Amino acid sequence: MCEANAYLVGDQGEELVMEAVDTVTPDDGGILLTSIFGDQKFLKATIHSLSLVDHKVYLKSAE
Amino acid sequence: MCEANAYLVGDQGEELVMEAVDTVTPDDGGILLTSIFGDQKFLKATIHSLSLVDHKVYLKSAE
Repeated sequence: MCEANAYLVGDQGEELVMEAVDTVTPDDGGILLTSIFGDQKFLKATIHSLSLVDHKVYLKSAE
Repeated sequence: MCEANAYLVGDQGEELVMEAVDTVTPDDGGILLTSIFGDQKFLKATIHSLSLVDHKVYLKSAE
């Protein structure tokens, strides 16, 4: 499986917001994260950068 | 390995722009894609969405 962990990057560093993320899709001014288990989380954020071999997705707050 | 293929999404559908992408980082008004082989490609685009289990990264032109 090729899921990744999603981190919100801010002034205080990286905060893990969801593990085992499958899809990230734009949704209503933010993004909707869906894990391989079907869990969903909405964040007012954008996709900042990726490091896929490290299984990392970096998000940046849109607020 | 958990690399993905990067597709530029436009009016004409999806165009494969790079295979085996490892990192995607913001760079000078666009994004820099780096493959697991070290190849690099700069695009005036943003990261639109992800489907990691399908090994797909969708980009959207910023122009």
